[in-house]
Amino acid sequence: MPRRYLNLTPLSEALAAMRAAFPPEEHAETVPLRQAVDRVTAKPIYAAYSVPETDIAKFDGYAVKSRETLGAQDQRPLPLTEYARVNTGDLIPPSFDAVVMIEDTWDDGGIPWIRKSASSGQNVRHAGEDIRAGELVLPKGHRIRSFDIGALATYGITRVCVRSVRIGIIPTGSDLVPLGVAPAPGQTIETNTLMAEAYLTRMGATCCRYGIVPDDPDLIRPALEKALVENDLVILSAGSSAGTRDYSREVVEALGEIIFHGIAVRPGKPVLLARVNGKPVIGMPGYPVAAQTILREVVGNLLEWWGLSAPQAEELDVRLSRRLASDLGFDEFIPVSIGRVSGTCWATPHPRGGGIQMAVVRANGYLHIPADREGIEAGEEVRVRLTVPPATIARTLICVGQRDLALGELGNCLADAGYLLHCCNASTIGAVLALRGNTCHAAAVALPETRSAWNDHVLRFLPDVDLLRLQVARTELGIASTGHLDPADLASLRFVNRPKGTPARTLFDEWLDGQGLDAGGISGYGHEIRTHSAVVAAISSGNADAGVCTAHMAREAGLRFTPLGYESYDLVIRKELAADDGVAALIRAAHSPELRALLRAAGRAPVDGASGDVLPA
Amino acid sequence: MPRRYLNLTPLSEALAAMRAAFPPEEHAETVPLRQAVDRVTAKPIYAAYSVPETDIAKFDGYAVKSRETLGAQDQRPLPLTEYARVNTGDLIPPSFDAVVMIEDTWDDGGIPWIRKSASSGQNVRHAGEDIRAGELVLPKGHRIRSFDIGALATYGITRVCVRSVRIGIIPTGSDLVPLGVAPAPGQTIETNTLMAEAYLTRMGATCCRYGIVPDDPDLIRPALEKALVENDLVILSAGSSAGTRDYSREVVEALGEIIFHGIAVRPGKPVLLARVNGKPVIGMPGYPVAAQTILREVVGNLLEWWGLSAPQAEELDVRLSRRLASDLGFDEFIPVSIGRVSGTCWATPHPRGGGIQMAVVRANGYLHIPADREGIEAGEEVRVRLTVPPATIARTLICVGQRDLALGELGNCLADAGYLLHCCNASTIGAVLALRGNTCHAAAVALPETRSAWNDHVLRFLPDVDLLRLQVARTELGIASTGHLDPADLASLRFVNRPKGTPARTLFDEWLDGQGLDAGGISGYGHEIRTHSAVVAAISSGNADAGVCTAHMAREAGLRFTPLGYESYDLVIRKELAADDGVAALIRAAHSPELRALLRAAGRAPVDGASGDVLPA
Repeated sequence: MPRRYLNLTPLSEALAAMRAAFPPEEHAETVPLRQAVDRVTAKPIYAAYSVPETDIAKFDGYAVKSRETLGAQDQRPLPLTEYARVNTGDLIPPSFDAVVMIEDTWDDGGIPWIRKSASSGQNVRHAGEDIRAGELVLPKGHRIRSFDIGALATYGITRVCVRSVRIGIIPTGSDLVPLGVAPAPGQTIETNTLMAEAYLTRMGATCCRYGIVPDDPDLIRPALEKALVENDLVILSAGSSAGTRDYSREVVEALGEIIFHGIAVRPGKPVLLARVNGKPVIGMPGYPVAAQTILREVVGNLLEWWGLSAPQAEELDVRLSRRLASDLGFDEFIPVSIGRVSGTCWATPHPRGGGIQMAVVRANGYLHIPADREGIEAGEEVRVRLTVPPATIARTLICVGQRDLALGELGNCLADAGYLLHCCNASTIGAVLALRGNTCHAAAVALPETRSAWNDHVLRFLPDVDLLRLQVARTELGIASTGHLDPADLASLRFVNRPKGTPARTLFDEWLDGQGLDAGGISGYGHEIRTHSAVVAAISSGNADAGVCTAHMAREAGLRFTPLGYESYDLVIRKELAADDGVAALIRAAHSPELRALLRAAGRAPVDGASGDVLPA
Repeated sequence: MPRRYLNLTPLSEALAAMRAAFPPEEHAETVPLRQAVDRVTAKPIYAAYSVPETDIAKFDGYAVKSRETLGAQDQRPLPLTEYARVNTGDLIPPSFDAVVMIEDTWDDGGIPWIRKSASSGQNVRHAGEDIRAGELVLPKGHRIRSFDIGALATYGITRVCVRSVRIGIIPTGSDLVPLGVAPAPGQTIETNTLMAEAYLTRMGATCCRYGIVPDDPDLIRPALEKALVENDLVILSAGSSAGTRDYSREVVEALGEIIFHGIAVRPGKPVLLARVNGKPVIGMPGYPVAAQTILREVVGNLLEWWGLSAPQAEELDVRLSRRLASDLGFDEFIPVSIGRVSGTCWATPHPRGGGIQMAVVRANGYLHIPADREGIEAGEEVRVRLTVPPATIARTLICVGQRDLALGELGNCLADAGYLLHCCNASTIGAVLALRGNTCHAAAVALPETRSAWNDHVLRFLPDVDLLRLQVARTELGIASTGHLDPADLASLRFVNRPKGTPARTLFDEWLDGQGLDAGGISGYGHEIRTHSAVVAAISSGNADAGVCTAHMAREAGLRFTPLGYESYDLVIRKELAADDGVAALIRAAHSPELRALLRAAGRAPVDGASGDVLPA
């Protein structure tokens, strides 16, 4: 029988147990100065000598005794009597106390003359002006910045003792292949340790990734023992769950003591923490987003406890654009995209799920729903943590609705104007409600060009809102078939359909209606295929005779095509936002020749002049 | 005759001329995925295949046909008829449409039984759930984050085309020695190119530092020509000024065209921009803080124009704690320390000056005074740019006043509690006024222990403020001498004194008064020496017979010592702030045994119980 977790430890308890089990220790390494940027000092750094060490000249000129220049005036120039020629940075010879800039002198018979007396200390950099011997340059715990490097070098510091934790990362899994190897069916590219290395290195850890170990406790054990000798902390990637091929627990239990196994966090539940030879061993879940959560919330927490810190994790108070449910007792972490609409910052959630990495790639922050909340209401103020610099939020445009390849291209055009387009997936009604709540810059909807679709799906929900309808792309849809399609013969063909609610399905149903045909008589009417390309593939491979897809794809595949109508892919924008710089840039990008050219090539060019005002019905 | 700049170009004009001369070009390089973190994509990245590529199992269990499980209930378990054993990530064989988790089955006679029917699609990760083939992964212009790396790897992307500018950096100067070589008198460690490399690399540039070239146009020219062939942009470090040893202008003028030389910016005035073979050559000033300004405001501006960006440059609206003068027509950049006091963020300036690198090290941001302002008033709201993550501002404590080695140690102790102590130099009156304005957490004052000093220098300016006086250190002062000091013989000795206004000077003057001695009769009374250690050095080396310094230093040097009294180094805090977490931590740190031990070793332990309430006089 497969095991189940006996009980899930609440996140806060798990972290407390972890901190209690592994008190802070000084983990440090000494690195050359050039490698010290973004690292955190483990010890204070003091200046070994003063800078400048002695009084030096600030400019090229003459070192003088100021009292001997007294009386020099525009009307009564004086020759310098005692002086020494100095260049910038040269020592001021003893008994001289000021420098006259060479530009303020002129030569007469080999002697410099001046028109103005010098004051004591003038144009002199005094010993210790920058720093004095023994003075603190950097306290401990200081994250070294680029410009700190120059100062440290000036003070003669060539190596720096910085905080460091040596982390060994062991990927486990018989199905894994390393990056660069094409995975066979059922194989997976091993990516979590690469991501862990990238994240933890930026926290100041020194990571060592080991080779992939198959799901075999007799192989995992020696790999772990070796890594424990060589590191301060070891991460076993994958195998920490409770499935039949999960051996992390068995292996660490034999070598040490389990601190917790399974915590009430989503994603990231199947995490394991053990102490082996006094060192922490962390079993990290295999689902990538779960692994990220554990890296940030568990491993990162331990590293912070030990004095390291994440380089950037700014918080922002925003409003949540739609209700999020959450289980009581679970700490949930949800990727969100944050943008400022009409002066209010809104966070719109992306799909949850341990396998959906794109949700995190598309997000610019994440929301933590604590264990004592059952969910968060739409409009509620929440604190989010950013995964981008805060300044980028002002340049972020939030688009809610249906994703489309055209939207990616629109985002690229917009990037040239300095804006970031975030698309948060939603159904048409979800997109329209976001527009109604004024929580997004644009709603993206894909509608069939039928008489009632625009009114039924958009306008009737927004009766009092002035809208702009911006057609981004227009796609001809129809029936692809191997031979000529006679509607009367449809019942004899093996058909493949598109899912309910898609414009292609709607147009097909209207067409059937118009032809007086009954859907029930079509073999495969209920066989819904998720993408146009899969429809074409099914027909081309001989698994079907006909199906609904785009004209462009049917023609590219050399199939016959019976037109059904058009799908319009539109951005819907509140007219009041059109003057907003970012929204104006979005509208310009949608009209840009680059985007038009790309769409034309894909057979999806919008109707010229189709974008414009839309009056409520 | 040395040259002068003919005219200074305003910063805004200089930047416009630069952008006009060097339009954006696509500078890019392709790097392995592991090196792509923090780089900016030069091209959009698309998914080459869908992830998952086909429908796969979400959990270990059995692939089933959902319609054949209909009817299974707790009271009426069913055996699975058609099924396939699958592990997490395995393909769902064709014709199966759901997965039953292994935990939800049990084995009876080699056949799995279920208690619950499966719904279509249950526990299945559908093809393209994460991303579909052809979909945009990252738009161009996206700064790649650690967790993006995992997604890119999952989508099979092993190399990334990122924006890049190849920058050649040539240090010039006959007085320069490389880092690691101890500079002889008059020599300087070459640090500016190291700093430039650190800064520009973090903007995404690929830097090549060349060897040091002496001040000789015949050597600079070939070095520049070589660098121009190998790079997109070349920086000549130092030599861009108008002094006799500044050859940058001469060299670039012979090879190309000057865009500007000398701009109205402080620090950073002597900057040079030229176009040689269509590429920009920047003459960067030699003073380190001037070089920083040019790196940030000129080179950085050009790189941003070309699509790169600085990793962190958050802005914050704060109030300026004291008036800052500025010349009309000059853009000035001034390092500041920002801290939140009683709910208001205040920026306190550090000293300006191209050579004072510690001002930038100590600062956590900088203020830009635009050319059209003659200065900024105390209390005025200004926008500052941070050089630290914004979240650290809440953990920053601002101390205004006299710097002291003890304060550095206090900062170290405070770092353990998670707080950052910033000390902004000011005179005693400056510190007291900052306290009166409530723009700092603490004022640092060094006062002689005389009857009136505390009242004269502190209390009378703060009549209505409840204060805490926290003695950080206490230092015995007196006269060090080579032999026994008889006050009557003072006139016959060569004396060295401390500057006016220092506690040592005040105590000495009071002592002379008490002894009925006249300062005028003491040879060297007017010879003011800037540090205690320099006083001791002057006596030890035989250049003086007696002088005023600390008891500790006199005794360490084996000199005779005549006590004059004590200096108290105190932090003065508004009592209302004592409950603030950071200030409370500061007070605790000042009382910590670690700090006391360090001070005792330096002969500067405070009086036990001396820290505490101070009532206004």
